[in-house]
Amino acid sequence: MNYKMMGRFIAQILLLEAVCMIPAMGISLVCGEQKAVFGFGVSILLIMAVFVLLRYFCRGHKKGFYARDGLVCVGVGWIVLSFMGCLPFYISGAIPHFLDAMFEIVSGFTTTGASILPEVESLPKGMLYWRSFSHWLGGMGVLVFLLAIVPAGEKQSGFTMHILRAESPGPSVGKLVPRMRRTAAILYLLYIVLTILNIFFLLIGDMPLFDALCTAFGTAGTGGFGIKNDSMASYSPYLQNVCTVFMLLFGVNFSCYYLLVMRRVRNVLHDEELRLYFGIIIASIALIVWNLGSYYDTLEETVRHGAFQVASIITTTGFATTDFDKWPAFSKAIILCLMVAGACAGSTGGGIKCSRVLLLFKSSYRNIRKVLDPQKIQTVRINGNKVDESVVENTNIYLVTYVFIVIASFLVISLDGFSTTTNFSAVLACFNNIGPGLDAVGPVCNFSQYSILSKSVLILDMLAGRLEIFPILILFSRSAWRHR
Amino acid sequence: MNYKMMGRFIAQILLLEAVCMIPAMGISLVCGEQKAVFGFGVSILLIMAVFVLLRYFCRGHKKGFYARDGLVCVGVGWIVLSFMGCLPFYISGAIPHFLDAMFEIVSGFTTTGASILPEVESLPKGMLYWRSFSHWLGGMGVLVFLLAIVPAGEKQSGFTMHILRAESPGPSVGKLVPRMRRTAAILYLLYIVLTILNIFFLLIGDMPLFDALCTAFGTAGTGGFGIKNDSMASYSPYLQNVCTVFMLLFGVNFSCYYLLVMRRVRNVLHDEELRLYFGIIIASIALIVWNLGSYYDTLEETVRHGAFQVASIITTTGFATTDFDKWPAFSKAIILCLMVAGACAGSTGGGIKCSRVLLLFKSSYRNIRKVLDPQKIQTVRINGNKVDESVVENTNIYLVTYVFIVIASFLVISLDGFSTTTNFSAVLACFNNIGPGLDAVGPVCNFSQYSILSKSVLILDMLAGRLEIFPILILFSRSAWRHR
Repeated sequence: MNYKMMGRFIAQILLLEAVCMIPAMGISLVCGEQKAVFGFGVSILLIMAVFVLLRYFCRGHKKGFYARDGLVCVGVGWIVLSFMGCLPFYISGAIPHFLDAMFEIVSGFTTTGASILPEVESLPKGMLYWRSFSHWLGGMGVLVFLLAIVPAGEKQSGFTMHILRAESPGPSVGKLVPRMRRTAAILYLLYIVLTILNIFFLLIGDMPLFDALCTAFGTAGTGGFGIKNDSMASYSPYLQNVCTVFMLLFGVNFSCYYLLVMRRVRNVLHDEELRLYFGIIIASIALIVWNLGSYYDTLEETVRHGAFQVASIITTTGFATTDFDKWPAFSKAIILCLMVAGACAGSTGGGIKCSRVLLLFKSSYRNIRKVLDPQKIQTVRINGNKVDESVVENTNIYLVTYVFIVIASFLVISLDGFSTTTNFSAVLACFNNIGPGLDAVGPVCNFSQYSILSKSVLILDMLAGRLEIFPILILFSRSAWRHR
Repeated sequence: MNYKMMGRFIAQILLLEAVCMIPAMGISLVCGEQKAVFGFGVSILLIMAVFVLLRYFCRGHKKGFYARDGLVCVGVGWIVLSFMGCLPFYISGAIPHFLDAMFEIVSGFTTTGASILPEVESLPKGMLYWRSFSHWLGGMGVLVFLLAIVPAGEKQSGFTMHILRAESPGPSVGKLVPRMRRTAAILYLLYIVLTILNIFFLLIGDMPLFDALCTAFGTAGTGGFGIKNDSMASYSPYLQNVCTVFMLLFGVNFSCYYLLVMRRVRNVLHDEELRLYFGIIIASIALIVWNLGSYYDTLEETVRHGAFQVASIITTTGFATTDFDKWPAFSKAIILCLMVAGACAGSTGGGIKCSRVLLLFKSSYRNIRKVLDPQKIQTVRINGNKVDESVVENTNIYLVTYVFIVIASFLVISLDGFSTTTNFSAVLACFNNIGPGLDAVGPVCNFSQYSILSKSVLILDMLAGRLEIFPILILFSRSAWRHR
């Protein structure tokens, strides 16, 4: 492990975090929220103190930065980021228990949106802003952001790529352009443009600026922290529909937008993952609308709520316009399946990702063809290109590890005695970075009733889900920490 | 597809089935159950008619029998077997609906033990016997049985092996002795000896002979059809404990018994699968006893019920001495996990099988080590032997396919509107050949409330679970039916 480089790297993250807290503190200042201002102020000072210490002790240069170092850096980076990020909540007294504050901010950075707060409207505005902004930061990856903006101080060839690989969602990181740093910058530019568009359309619908900012942050990061107790239910149908559209847009692989900008429309239209993504969405909405029947008064309402919830869950955002826990069983079953599927790779969404689902299905189907015709060599193809066997294998193992983690987490949180559906959907909601689950963790409920142990497990699940398992898992391995 | 050979093969199965119905008819005769006698009589005649027709039309010889033909034969064989096996229920009027009768007998042959009967005690004795005997037949594999007893008429080299491979549970069939037919005979001999021992110990505990026979059949096949409405709850603690022990014994890989007979005790003691199997059992019992606390009056009772249910579920038998659906959430969560884990490969139990769980875990762990040290070549070892990469890969894909089937089945049966826990555990209970699930399909409930569609899906799940997915899946592929 290259500790010095890790230290400098974490110092940079902390600096970024402190800078990002300033607007939140500003909002609290303007709104006269004294306690919140105090919370932010002390937090920023503490973060800067750690920053200075890290900078001092991690001077000098040591060569060698391996793939696993990238994973460890990302894992540790996210934990430190969360640890410092929850300080304003805790210090200001907005969330009295430290673990709850930690849960809330991890839920924010991992763009989960699961909350331990029974009601959010009494929270200071600055805190609400910081909560939502953590989604935006976490969405495209705090560390990718760093790569995009910091000057090329760390010139190690492997560093940038290993970090980007470790943090980006999806089975494989495609380089849009040969240089990784430029790729990161392009991604962030697209991210910012889409977010601004989102805010614009929300403002047109007469949403107050503060609400529009927070909602857009939650949508862009596919996070889902609401600033109202009823999430998005009290907003106008227009605003809900805008939200639906933008959730879906943020669930698309960002490379597709890059291709669109480059006018390679054909490539986008023939992208199998994108087709699967929209195919699942359309099928799910149709089935849910059919299943709901006359659950709502009008067809418009049924379609609107159906589409909103489907978009919210498949993109792993987690906003809600209605209590889908009260829907009939079939619709709930679809919601559960969407939780697992997740959005496209290379988007801000969580879950297994559509491209992995596609790969898993194809490799499973290939195996059946192999049984039927053992002599023939069968390859797995996506978008017409042969997928490397190691990618197929890794994707299969990803699912295996995924299943093990779901089962283990489910077992541990069952100790609290809630219903099977509650526990199972709580794990899925956290691990896939969605937010709400079913039953006692449904869209109108929250996670506050869980014990310290369960909350800790769910925090790890959220982190593991956001970082695609390995950066968190290897932190438990001794050899990850060894000097070479 | 070699249709002639398949026809002759199915004819043999039908002959065996007709012969096996005779004792059941005899019991009905003795008990004066006229309708049942009529049902059995007509069924036997029908089966023999089909037998004669198949024999006549499938004369002659055609060469070539491939692995996939073995799979198709096994898949079709089981479906025909079930179709004919349910006739007594239907014709005698014991089960008025054909699909219910089919569900019941598939549940029998696949050793699931899920029932659509709200109460069983009013069933004619002959029917009860046939229900339980179907477990015994299905347990070690009807077709393996054929291989063990039929004279070496079919001398095609591939035939025996392909059938044995297709039907035997577990990731790979180990040949105990070089000749497959002898292996099948040894397995069946062990099976018979253990069953007789089981009956003996039940009789010692003053169980009536009829009950002892049926219970032993259900235990040996890890089936779980009870002949009492309360399953095993009303039997004495001694009988329940005997049942616990024998369920566990039938969940052990039968090769271990062969090795014991050969006095290779060391190999058995160091068998990793066996260690995992008993490790899971002991840990589960301990945790459940701790979690139940003072749920029962005495510690003896707690341990007895805990051990019985754990043995019943991990071996996928499905007997019950208590309504575990009322247990606290953590104990229920353990039960759900045991449902998925299943017994040892090469036993009569269902589920994913301990050896697969072991392989999956090791290949998942290997992947993490690979991330930490990409240069080093890592092999997966079981019992000190390197596992072939193709086996590791197939096991991973097995889980992937398993997950797809669980999700698809869950979605379809959710249409009936029962609770999420009901539907999810119903799929697990059928696909893993267990029997009872949780909630509305709990140990004191049954599957009768499901619709025709759901029952059909669950029937396919039971068959797919028993035959380890592929023999059933490839029946849906057109190329499996092509002439070569």
